[in-house]
Amino acid sequence: MTAMRSETSQEAPDLLPLLRDALDRGDPVRLAEVLSGYRTQALLEHWYELDAEERERVLSTLPPEAGAELLSNLSAEEQPEVLQGLTPPQVAGVLEELSPDDLADTLQALEAYDREQSEEVRGLLDPGTLAVADALTGYDEEEAGGLMTPEFISVRATMTGAQVMAFLRRAAPDAETIYYLYVVDAEQRLKGVLSLRQLIVSDPEQRVQEMMNPDIVSIHTDTDQEEVARIMADYDLSVLPVLDGDDRLVGIVTVDDVLDVVTEEATEDIHRMGAAPIDIDYARASPWLLFRKRSSWLILLVVSMTLTFNVINHYEDLIVELAILAAFIPLLIGTGGNVGAQVATLVVRALGTRELELRDYFKVFWKELKTGLLLGLAFGAFMTGYVYFFQDEPLVAVALGITMVLISLCANLVGASLPFLFRRFGIDPALTSSPGITTVMDVVGLLIYFRVVIWVLEPLLTGQPATPLP
Amino acid sequence: MTAMRSETSQEAPDLLPLLRDALDRGDPVRLAEVLSGYRTQALLEHWYELDAEERERVLSTLPPEAGAELLSNLSAEEQPEVLQGLTPPQVAGVLEELSPDDLADTLQALEAYDREQSEEVRGLLDPGTLAVADALTGYDEEEAGGLMTPEFISVRATMTGAQVMAFLRRAAPDAETIYYLYVVDAEQRLKGVLSLRQLIVSDPEQRVQEMMNPDIVSIHTDTDQEEVARIMADYDLSVLPVLDGDDRLVGIVTVDDVLDVVTEEATEDIHRMGAAPIDIDYARASPWLLFRKRSSWLILLVVSMTLTFNVINHYEDLIVELAILAAFIPLLIGTGGNVGAQVATLVVRALGTRELELRDYFKVFWKELKTGLLLGLAFGAFMTGYVYFFQDEPLVAVALGITMVLISLCANLVGASLPFLFRRFGIDPALTSSPGITTVMDVVGLLIYFRVVIWVLEPLLTGQPATPLP
Repeated sequence: MTAMRSETSQEAPDLLPLLRDALDRGDPVRLAEVLSGYRTQALLEHWYELDAEERERVLSTLPPEAGAELLSNLSAEEQPEVLQGLTPPQVAGVLEELSPDDLADTLQALEAYDREQSEEVRGLLDPGTLAVADALTGYDEEEAGGLMTPEFISVRATMTGAQVMAFLRRAAPDAETIYYLYVVDAEQRLKGVLSLRQLIVSDPEQRVQEMMNPDIVSIHTDTDQEEVARIMADYDLSVLPVLDGDDRLVGIVTVDDVLDVVTEEATEDIHRMGAAPIDIDYARASPWLLFRKRSSWLILLVVSMTLTFNVINHYEDLIVELAILAAFIPLLIGTGGNVGAQVATLVVRALGTRELELRDYFKVFWKELKTGLLLGLAFGAFMTGYVYFFQDEPLVAVALGITMVLISLCANLVGASLPFLFRRFGIDPALTSSPGITTVMDVVGLLIYFRVVIWVLEPLLTGQPATPLP
Repeated sequence: MTAMRSETSQEAPDLLPLLRDALDRGDPVRLAEVLSGYRTQALLEHWYELDAEERERVLSTLPPEAGAELLSNLSAEEQPEVLQGLTPPQVAGVLEELSPDDLADTLQALEAYDREQSEEVRGLLDPGTLAVADALTGYDEEEAGGLMTPEFISVRATMTGAQVMAFLRRAAPDAETIYYLYVVDAEQRLKGVLSLRQLIVSDPEQRVQEMMNPDIVSIHTDTDQEEVARIMADYDLSVLPVLDGDDRLVGIVTVDDVLDVVTEEATEDIHRMGAAPIDIDYARASPWLLFRKRSSWLILLVVSMTLTFNVINHYEDLIVELAILAAFIPLLIGTGGNVGAQVATLVVRALGTRELELRDYFKVFWKELKTGLLLGLAFGAFMTGYVYFFQDEPLVAVALGITMVLISLCANLVGASLPFLFRRFGIDPALTSSPGITTVMDVVGLLIYFRVVIWVLEPLLTGQPATPLP
């Protein structure tokens, strides 16, 4: 492979037909040959087009390093499945090539799936590797402890540049990064950081303490991964040192792990906001799994929405007398839902990126009071004109216009307030969700509608007295 | 500053009261003293709590390096505003400290805002710095060319390790990263990459061509920034070389720039899915600006929703005869909207992260046909039971149950299909949006509802003949 590869590998023939051919022929040598010509990433792009048995055959054919790279890109649910087709020595060979943080995750997944295979594999792993991985197992996967690797390079403040350089040459192959060296004291407490860049431009006889930067941004093992990503982005850092409860340096988090976190967290937020808080790979999920995961939220919304039936049913006499009132229901409550979902989206995202904090609530409330009034007046004017055009009945037109103003204003305030309320009580603001806001505004919108209609149209309603409010 | 700083700077006293005090006293020496004790990031956290005049005073008090760091964290709209309070030499001093890509963006923003100040400042900048920045101005901000910096280090394949090391010591201070060295030929064509790690562990007499990795992942100046982020995450890379149309190396993109891109793109997707495709900082926007940006989408939705009025109006006779039918409208069409918004959320995100591609459409269609049928049957059974309980009228209960099955199924297929349709025609799938799907399903749901009611309830409807379908 001496050719330069551009981003889409357009120059190389497509992997899938070659792979399929080799798999169909059942020729392991040909399969190995095909696989050796492609990056792991190319293989991953077609991974889900292979069946379970084919995936096992591919993994057992790959050299251990490539197998490890492939494995580390699979989800914790899938890893043990695909390892089933390998012999324990093959599994151990692949696992030895994983970084300690990935190894810890994979071992946990394997143990939960097949305790026997897990025990056998553990017996074949290097005890040192195993100990490092096991030390990481105790941490929460969503916190810095679960993201970090213990493979950092630490040096002492009294070493000279030349000594550090000599040490680096030996330590480099095993470290996750050699571009930041951490200066610790005898108790493993972090005293400073020395970049390789600084080391290279400094006099080799200078001591670390004179070259290092003592002003360090660090995190703790229990720092939430979202916070880790935010600190890294805010301070433009590519590595963060992780301290334990006694402020001793125990690991580092690198930016490539955080890049995945940002994407995962965005997916989580997006799913929650669409009332689909589902932690599965969509492409892999079966209809039955999707039904089970999706229906819990939808059922909650359907049941809540029966309230709309009760409201309308309560005002049935009004509709019997003036059936045209029913025809405006979807337009009115739908607009309320859209206004509320739109503002909730803006506020949820601003809370998520820390552009807004809890203390900003009153500022947001005032802003959205004004914005909601502007939107309400615009839609109210439209509504009045529209109804007048279709009904030629000024009082109905006025009632509908007033309803639209009030619904828009109310939806705007509800949509802006609920995310703050959720955050206040420690619930993810994204769980307010567009469908959730829509459902709330359906009920609230109907109550506003009928109240305004009774108030404005009383002179028109002569047949029966209007039903009093509940 | 020798104290170690933890992520939240809890140990240091809060910056805001100190800053406010210094600003109120109007004492520039005290202000400089306060600012020198804090990182730029701490200042940015309170930035929007200062008024315009205070921001100008803070910026003109900061040393140029800190001012540049602050400036590069502000939006293109705000940069020229805050620079207004500085003299042209002060502006030039700050701008000289920006990296070339940031300088190019800021100069463009300044020129658009105040041509006169821009000309004066350009006259004061170093001509070399200016030329590098101007060369970057031609690129689209959302493509690799707009993200890249030309400050990479390139070496020749024939150099020895020791020669490269000596060259590095001189070049290090100006380069964006020294951890990846790019090997180019006389035509500036990329031949390989040499990591500083490899260089350090290799024999100093070895030549670059023997140490370098010839297998390079690269991008072009017109590669979209989302694609850049995806390649970096997929290949676990922290730097990507950027080539021009003639495959010459012209710059590098580093992962810290891409981290911001991922967050920005997620915000864009989230906003679009909430029908709030707004490219402004929410916290800074005035109610009037929010009204203008938000109303265009809402007006489109309101106008589309007048169709619901027309459908219901068309079937007015039906409602006059059986008013209870109106009471189920929000429950039925709301559920359709929720089902559709939920599945659209899953599909839009999976398309965005490339978990799904256009070619997966039929697979998704079949999957959602089954999932939609399961959801429909569950909600249909609930609806039939609910209506029977409230109405004690089996035929109405059956009609409503059938409607619910059909609406759920239809919403699921529409929600899963529209994002693919948008992608097919080169529109961002996120623009389908939850409110958009809800609006479509309001209209479609009503058409299904009345059609089913007429079909099932025909024996009950004796007063007037049911209105024929349009």
